[in-house]
Amino acid sequence: MGVTEKIARLLTNTGYEDIPGEARDIARDAILDCVGVTIAGSGETAVGILAEQVKAIGAAPQAGVICGGFGTSADLAAWVNGAASHVLDYDDTIALASNYNMHPTVPVLPALLAAGESVNSSGRDIILAYVLGLEVEYRIGSAIGAYTSALGWHPTPVLGTIGAAAACAKIFNLTVEQIRMAIGIAGSMAGGLTRNFGTMTKSLHAGNAARNGIVAASLARRGFTADSGLLERDYGFCHLFSAGQVKEPTISRSGKNWEIVATGITFKPYPCCRGTHPSIDAVLYLRNKHHITADQVAGIKCKTKQQTHRILRYDRPGNGLEAKFSMQYCVSVALLRGKVTLADFSAESLNDPAVCDIIPKISYLHPEEWEKENSLTQEVVMTLKDGREYVHRVDTPRGEPKNPMTPDELKAKFTDCARRHFSPAWINQLLEMLTDLESLSNISNLMKLLTYGTAVPAGKTDIE
Amino acid sequence: MGVTEKIARLLTNTGYEDIPGEARDIARDAILDCVGVTIAGSGETAVGILAEQVKAIGAAPQAGVICGGFGTSADLAAWVNGAASHVLDYDDTIALASNYNMHPTVPVLPALLAAGESVNSSGRDIILAYVLGLEVEYRIGSAIGAYTSALGWHPTPVLGTIGAAAACAKIFNLTVEQIRMAIGIAGSMAGGLTRNFGTMTKSLHAGNAARNGIVAASLARRGFTADSGLLERDYGFCHLFSAGQVKEPTISRSGKNWEIVATGITFKPYPCCRGTHPSIDAVLYLRNKHHITADQVAGIKCKTKQQTHRILRYDRPGNGLEAKFSMQYCVSVALLRGKVTLADFSAESLNDPAVCDIIPKISYLHPEEWEKENSLTQEVVMTLKDGREYVHRVDTPRGEPKNPMTPDELKAKFTDCARRHFSPAWINQLLEMLTDLESLSNISNLMKLLTYGTAVPAGKTDIE
Repeated sequence: MGVTEKIARLLTNTGYEDIPGEARDIARDAILDCVGVTIAGSGETAVGILAEQVKAIGAAPQAGVICGGFGTSADLAAWVNGAASHVLDYDDTIALASNYNMHPTVPVLPALLAAGESVNSSGRDIILAYVLGLEVEYRIGSAIGAYTSALGWHPTPVLGTIGAAAACAKIFNLTVEQIRMAIGIAGSMAGGLTRNFGTMTKSLHAGNAARNGIVAASLARRGFTADSGLLERDYGFCHLFSAGQVKEPTISRSGKNWEIVATGITFKPYPCCRGTHPSIDAVLYLRNKHHITADQVAGIKCKTKQQTHRILRYDRPGNGLEAKFSMQYCVSVALLRGKVTLADFSAESLNDPAVCDIIPKISYLHPEEWEKENSLTQEVVMTLKDGREYVHRVDTPRGEPKNPMTPDELKAKFTDCARRHFSPAWINQLLEMLTDLESLSNISNLMKLLTYGTAVPAGKTDIE
Repeated sequence: MGVTEKIARLLTNTGYEDIPGEARDIARDAILDCVGVTIAGSGETAVGILAEQVKAIGAAPQAGVICGGFGTSADLAAWVNGAASHVLDYDDTIALASNYNMHPTVPVLPALLAAGESVNSSGRDIILAYVLGLEVEYRIGSAIGAYTSALGWHPTPVLGTIGAAAACAKIFNLTVEQIRMAIGIAGSMAGGLTRNFGTMTKSLHAGNAARNGIVAASLARRGFTADSGLLERDYGFCHLFSAGQVKEPTISRSGKNWEIVATGITFKPYPCCRGTHPSIDAVLYLRNKHHITADQVAGIKCKTKQQTHRILRYDRPGNGLEAKFSMQYCVSVALLRGKVTLADFSAESLNDPAVCDIIPKISYLHPEEWEKENSLTQEVVMTLKDGREYVHRVDTPRGEPKNPMTPDELKAKFTDCARRHFSPAWINQLLEMLTDLESLSNISNLMKLLTYGTAVPAGKTDIE
């Protein structure tokens, strides 16, 4: 039996009760986290353009555009929401746990929320389909993710299109044969180039994956056909997205050992590229331990792999999007303000003279022996004007499954994200629904709150 | 100046008067041919499923679904119409003229007609943007098409997404900077696997390219950003779709030597894979020259490259879609009926005992010395029961620019296609408008005829 059929059978054979409690808990956290960053991202320019494009299509309202104040078709809602969830680079990753990096939730969850709203899914339906969608992404990713990434493909939309199709297939209750078709259709819609990082098209990748996943599952439900073993066959999906290096992917784990638990999910404590996080952690540690203020600091050297600097290519960022990919900027903010939050990427923050003053003091070091290691390890050497020197090394930055954010931190992140659009009372209601997601018999009330919340001025407690 | 910028400048600098008459003539023929096969394809199951999917979205009518009887958004109309134009494998190609094969018109024209209808374009606007869209496809194709194809990508949607984006950018009158963005966005939406040949997803590839082309141009018009040199940069479009074999594509031709003339377009005389056409031509030649009837024939050997048999993998086809990729079936029909038309791929035709009787008499030969040649050459050896043997070789099958279909043949093909949906009077009106396309000040009347024609029962002359 080929991998495509195995996956289809896993999807049809798995019910909510088959998902262990630990997996459900992680899923609930991931859904809360993703909804939060989607709310925060919904106001970005890229998302506004997509929302205008969708409004012009004028589709019948079947699913809501989060913070958009309007409904549209499920696939188009997923398109906008998927981009909103990724645009701030604040959404979850699996950078340390795997031998490549992808953002697992942003292709799957926006697709599921929109598809689920259109067919009145329950909270349990969403959790189940979400866990299965991630399972599919992680399994294919473990076979080809490193090749996909090295070739220049963005793994998030490539693997995410299949993950979203699988998750939506579950929500639509497709048969084994229909799921094989959905995966085959999705494979021909997958793509997205890393070259487009640093532009609006990066967030579009997540939206495309989410939309194409719904479209593939919907077409399969209507009887549309595709190759029934696209993942594994010669010149199939894995073959092409690994440039011939992987033809038949080996799926090592059984269905009892869920990837969402085994590999886990990393939640980001800071709204910027994961490549900056170990140094931010290290600077915050030294700052707090030794009560250091910015004006005491003569210089900070960040030891990283060279590749990290290639990704973080904005040494002197000109806007908030570039600042997310600037080690110098992120470390300066951490040193100066003792935290790195959404507010730190505003134009105002970028022009803060105190930040501009520190940036030139931050530099890189690339120890040769670090190049081959597959890790996020970074080390910070902080030199003070009085001659003291402190060193701190971070192997497992905050947010990794082995160094997790606490439940309170996750809630605080959600609240910080959500207050960009919602009043405190509204945020409390969202938090209640999302932390008790399994008790929702229909997610449409949640989706309506998320969609139309923009009509409520922040600070008003109108839901009470 | 990089290739992406060169293309953007070519698009903005070219007006209708810059296109030579010969190029306009070919464009007009190609548009007529594509509209014909789209009408014929609109009734296929795959297209029906897509139309139902689009209807369920319920978008505001901005462009018509051909023979669908309803309007929708421009991108969704292009999606359905693009699939309809490719589903019969009767649309144009560049198989002999290039060192790879693609179907140039089906990603570009359906996108243009839908985009053009939504902004009230003239016939001249369509011809100009069409010539430019093909120019872009052919130029990038000459750099990477052979690699793209060998890797297992379907060149039609891969190159076609860029061609469609370029053509729509012209229709939307984008600036150089916006066109660079449109190409960058489109590059991250391109994909499609040859592995899906022989399924409905093959035709979806053309629809996806057409739709994504419009979406990319529309987003760029609204200010969406992407990499500004995606075609040529490291890890850009050409790099990825050639697996690193082409990074900076060389564009050899100047803007004065139009590819639509220099390379030309092949129109298909038979609604089946181009790989069957030389043998069909040879059988028809021998049949007519020597007045041979099917019952005289003991056997026919078709000499082809081995690769041709790999593509034509249905020796005993089970349905009309498979029959299009069966040398035995197509040659049998040619011998028996003296022609190969749309009607020959019906279930009735497949079960015709006379066809079933001949099929086992058709076989392949693969001369070793033919393998390396890049050509369509095939040879047929026909042995009669009375011992006579006839041989005929075809290097340039009918429909190639050097062995073109006549204007009358193209009109007859259009009429045969169009009568699947339209009355003779309606067909005449369509023919008039399409052969004098440059005189249409607004294509919307043409599109309305094409969209709502299904409401008119065939045989009624209701337009008179």
